[in-house]
Amino acid sequence: MSNIPESVQLGKNTVIEEDVVVGENVVIGHNTVLLQGTHIGDDVSIGSNCVLGIKPGVNQRMRKTAQDNQNLMIESGTRIGHLVSIYSGTKIGKGVFIGDQASIRENVSVGPDSVIGRAAIVELNTTIGKSCTIQTLAYVTGDTTLEDEVFIGPCVSMSNDKYMGAQPFSLKGPHIRKGAKIGNNASLLPGVTIGKDTIVGAGSVVTKNIEENIVVAGIPARKIRS
Amino acid sequence: MSNIPESVQLGKNTVIEEDVVVGENVVIGHNTVLLQGTHIGDDVSIGSNCVLGIKPGVNQRMRKTAQDNQNLMIESGTRIGHLVSIYSGTKIGKGVFIGDQASIRENVSVGPDSVIGRAAIVELNTTIGKSCTIQTLAYVTGDTTLEDEVFIGPCVSMSNDKYMGAQPFSLKGPHIRKGAKIGNNASLLPGVTIGKDTIVGAGSVVTKNIEENIVVAGIPARKIRS
Amino acid sequence: MSNIPESVQLGKNTVIEEDVVVGENVVIGHNTVLLQGTHIGDDVSIGSNCVLGIKPGVNQRMRKTAQDNQNLMIESGTRIGHLVSIYSGTKIGKGVFIGDQASIRENVSVGPDSVIGRAAIVELNTTIGKSCTIQTLAYVTGDTTLEDEVFIGPCVSMSNDKYMGAQPFSLKGPHIRKGAKIGNNASLLPGVTIGKDTIVGAGSVVTKNIEENIVVAGIPARKIRS
Repeated sequence: MSNIPESVQLGKNTVIEEDVVVGENVVIGHNTVLLQGTHIGDDVSIGSNCVLGIKPGVNQRMRKTAQDNQNLMIESGTRIGHLVSIYSGTKIGKGVFIGDQASIRENVSVGPDSVIGRAAIVELNTTIGKSCTIQTLAYVTGDTTLEDEVFIGPCVSMSNDKYMGAQPFSLKGPHIRKGAKIGNNASLLPGVTIGKDTIVGAGSVVTKNIEENIVVAGIPARKIRS
Repeated sequence: MSNIPESVQLGKNTVIEEDVVVGENVVIGHNTVLLQGTHIGDDVSIGSNCVLGIKPGVNQRMRKTAQDNQNLMIESGTRIGHLVSIYSGTKIGKGVFIGDQASIRENVSVGPDSVIGRAAIVELNTTIGKSCTIQTLAYVTGDTTLEDEVFIGPCVSMSNDKYMGAQPFSLKGPHIRKGAKIGNNASLLPGVTIGKDTIVGAGSVVTKNIEENIVVAGIPARKIRS
Repeated sequence: MSNIPESVQLGKNTVIEEDVVVGENVVIGHNTVLLQGTHIGDDVSIGSNCVLGIKPGVNQRMRKTAQDNQNLMIESGTRIGHLVSIYSGTKIGKGVFIGDQASIRENVSVGPDSVIGRAAIVELNTTIGKSCTIQTLAYVTGDTTLEDEVFIGPCVSMSNDKYMGAQPFSLKGPHIRKGAKIGNNASLLPGVTIGKDTIVGAGSVVTKNIEENIVVAGIPARKIRS
């Protein structure tokens, strides 16, 4: 077991593996697992029944990522809910809020003061800027970029695989520019760019790039307002 | 640890904090956490790896709710699956069924004999009537009202924030009247009312109030049958 | 506790009930629960905080399934993530990958080398062929058939209840033929058949049977290419 400061409030039945670093005044819930190489900053709180620092698993039909013994880094002041899973090789910035049952994979960066909602999922190799909001049950696919202050509504869906498994090496998720807002249950197709401050209506399907500062809606999404 | 009746069947590694009340003939699975102030009625069953009685957490960009030391109340005969999270200040009625991996937040009321499906999520300040069915992976947003006998299909999405974060104090979810049925993966926009016994087709996007006893479908949803 | 081979790597706080069979070289994470009657083949890995071998629960408004003391069978070489729940009476083939927070119910068969994505849910009485991919947060309803090499995109939704609870005994999910691909966040209605090698576009709503080897899209889904 790793060396834990006295100021840390540890729940019952927690499992803390080797090479885990925990800062001052951290609160860790019951039954939570910190796997090898997890680094927790000061004043972080973590709920019960979480699993943090997961090493990526693969099977023969999933791609491998370069993982040179990377750690999970969680910066100070971040709050993590219950039943959350986060992978190694990911960095969570300061003051982030991660809802219960959220899952964040490897090689992800989450900027400071962002919110990852309840049961939201962020796949690998994705960059999320500062002060973003990703709402409940939203799905942020792999190889995606969210610039600062992006809003992703509940149940938004994205994909990064234009050929749905037939050509596995062309993966590219959406690129969502600063301040854009995506309405609930909208679908974004692989590689689309959503312009700065643009609004995508609820339930829309975005099939191509969208210019900045407009409102789009429908299937496929078309401009309804400037 | 709180005082637990002899008739209770406790799993291994359960964590039961102070001020927890557990009724007669309750079954609690392994690794389940009952946090301070949780009240469990008679004949309730709870699966493994659950976290019940969670105190609401907030960050600077999320609203606080009034929580004057409220408890989580689970009434008799209710069945709760595995890996479930439920917050304090919420009341679950008699004979309710809550599926695995469901999550229910604070200040929610669930009426008797309702079903909250697997991985369904119910946000804060929401009222669910009696004998409602909320299916798998459905998302019931905050500040929502479901009257009695409402059916919410799988993967239904709702939102309560008309301005997607730009004006945080106008939150209002849908109001779904008695006996209305919402098809799978439909999207309901903030504040819409769905009339009594009305049916919303699968994949529809409901952007305005819908009268009673009709069938609507499409994007935006329009009447297709009386 | 059941008899566990010496080659098994057991995490901390695991709970292994009676009548559990674990093969050689199995890895089991921390806080994971193997309920009575779970059979794990050789070289299987299982993450932390999982619950495997769950007996089906019902309430008065949910149907019962025949469950003559059936076991959960997990064949060799399969990898299971963290926070996963799987029911008894289900068979998971060789070399399957099951993502974190996935849930698979009773009387399900998953063919070899298939992938069940992160937080994907598979309901009861469903058959999944070999080398299928079910992506993150997809919902495979009950009474569904996926033939071999089917691709289900992220957040796809299905339903099996044409009358949404009004006539409970007519449940039938989709039948998806070999090699068909369903785009992200598409909705499939009860009982529809999707033809061999057909592609359903993202966000489509499929309301009737679709012939083989075409591309459909829209609400309702219509042919856009042969």
